[in-house]
Amino acid sequence: MFENLPERVEIREVGPRDGLQNEQAFVPTEVKKEFIRRLAAAGFRLLEITSFVNPKWIPALADGAEIGSEFADLEGVRTTALVPNMKGLENALKAGMKEISLFMSASESHNKANVNRTIVETMKQFEELVPTAKKEGLHVNAALSTSFGCPFEGDVAPEQVVSLAKALLDMGIDEIGIADTIGVANPLQVKRLMEKVLDLCDVERVGLHFHDTEGTAVANSVAALEMGITRFDGAVGGLGGCPYAPGASGNVPTEHLVYAFEKMGVDTGIQLEKLIEAALFIQDVLGHPLSSNGLRAHLGRKARTEAKAS
Amino acid sequence: MFENLPERVEIREVGPRDGLQNEQAFVPTEVKKEFIRRLAAAGFRLLEITSFVNPKWIPALADGAEIGSEFADLEGVRTTALVPNMKGLENALKAGMKEISLFMSASESHNKANVNRTIVETMKQFEELVPTAKKEGLHVNAALSTSFGCPFEGDVAPEQVVSLAKALLDMGIDEIGIADTIGVANPLQVKRLMEKVLDLCDVERVGLHFHDTEGTAVANSVAALEMGITRFDGAVGGLGGCPYAPGASGNVPTEHLVYAFEKMGVDTGIQLEKLIEAALFIQDVLGHPLSSNGLRAHLGRKARTEAKAS
Repeated sequence: MFENLPERVEIREVGPRDGLQNEQAFVPTEVKKEFIRRLAAAGFRLLEITSFVNPKWIPALADGAEIGSEFADLEGVRTTALVPNMKGLENALKAGMKEISLFMSASESHNKANVNRTIVETMKQFEELVPTAKKEGLHVNAALSTSFGCPFEGDVAPEQVVSLAKALLDMGIDEIGIADTIGVANPLQVKRLMEKVLDLCDVERVGLHFHDTEGTAVANSVAALEMGITRFDGAVGGLGGCPYAPGASGNVPTEHLVYAFEKMGVDTGIQLEKLIEAALFIQDVLGHPLSSNGLRAHLGRKARTEAKAS
Repeated sequence: MFENLPERVEIREVGPRDGLQNEQAFVPTEVKKEFIRRLAAAGFRLLEITSFVNPKWIPALADGAEIGSEFADLEGVRTTALVPNMKGLENALKAGMKEISLFMSASESHNKANVNRTIVETMKQFEELVPTAKKEGLHVNAALSTSFGCPFEGDVAPEQVVSLAKALLDMGIDEIGIADTIGVANPLQVKRLMEKVLDLCDVERVGLHFHDTEGTAVANSVAALEMGITRFDGAVGGLGGCPYAPGASGNVPTEHLVYAFEKMGVDTGIQLEKLIEAALFIQDVLGHPLSSNGLRAHLGRKARTEAKAS
């Protein structure tokens, strides 16, 4: 165990998109920009900044065009944005994006609920989208939601996930993201599913996206790390959630991943203190406490240090 | 990875002691009794129920004698209580306890702060305590706090932990508990330290006690599970904390351990729904929300089910 850990991993911070899209209140565009700048300053080289989804669906990210234009070129950082359809792709290109992220669900009911299409219809749409995006020179990610479980169907067959991942890779996407949208995965399940996914392509093209609903997200990430996987999503403070699972915790707190990986000798390139500052900045704006244990621990330490100093 | 997981583990619920001792308000004795009864009904076969520490130190557990007498014999459950000194041992015996738990720290400063003795002084005390307890037929656990890090000294040398564990085992204790009192451990550190500890005795005599301060507790537990370790402490709802680390999260939520282990095919003997009910029972009494993600997820699911039914 842990004999051949990767030397370095890349964590994609998805707070500005996956996090803020679940917030009731619209976060002002200038605040989003400052949040993204602070994340870039913390050392992230992968950032999911917004979504080119119809604002009617996701009003929280209605300023996608402006955010995209501002950060399409960000020195040392690959920024990506969600694209649901051809219209979204056009807008992403207009904004100058160099990278996009497609998304679909591995379970039929969640795909229907989330994008109002069957899986077959989504695949057909991607057969047009992916070559167009690649022709434009874009780096194309695709995420498979509900790969470890569906809020409507429960278990999702690994064969289904693998089959969809293969189809997407065959279309020419650059990276496949395997997502535990509702946070039900366990480390053994991660091992079993990812063994099959890693048969499809190089490990560099595979990313994982965990939510911490049942407290297993860091354990799942460590299991994946042990398998050599080097790309992980996280959201500072544990921002995010799932509209079909109210009350559930959000994305794995990025600070938990950075803490665990760095302590295990795996370089993340991220400065934990600056990451925490970015989390506190957005927490102040949102006006409600974020759920992350790491953030609470930091605030406790800070209060103690200040009490000693005064 | 995960090829030879244990078939079964034993989780010791420490909420009634480690959890409640950190609460500001005194929990009425009758409430504590009901809490313990509900935990026993959830399937725990190991319960840490109280402490025979001087009530001046820990007023929250001033009713140790009454709790001990009530639950010294609990069908199908091994109950234990903390014993700090000979006076505590006498009181535990008077209450009819069959099992006790000694505790000391692996770091000098924490031991001094916690029990106002040097490590050498504590060891000398244990040299008298352990044989006396064994002569009385007690099952004796000993826990080594701050084994993965100290709030005052930072890193704690694994050699120090191993040396103290060996001394305690040589004295004749039945079980050694390795505790991450401030929740700073990582899975690689768990592997490295526990390899050394497992050289000292059979795996059945070794237990782990994690806190979730940095979000690593389940990952640490899974790493230990992979090493064949079968005894873990947890506190429902993530009760607990550390008086030297205010703001920090508490013990690893037992529901997180049960969820992860059961999903990985490892039997815990615990019914998750009943465990959650016990956590909600004590949360209502305490009047503040417990920090556990699993508990929040359960409440969200319950609210959805009720909304559908009405």
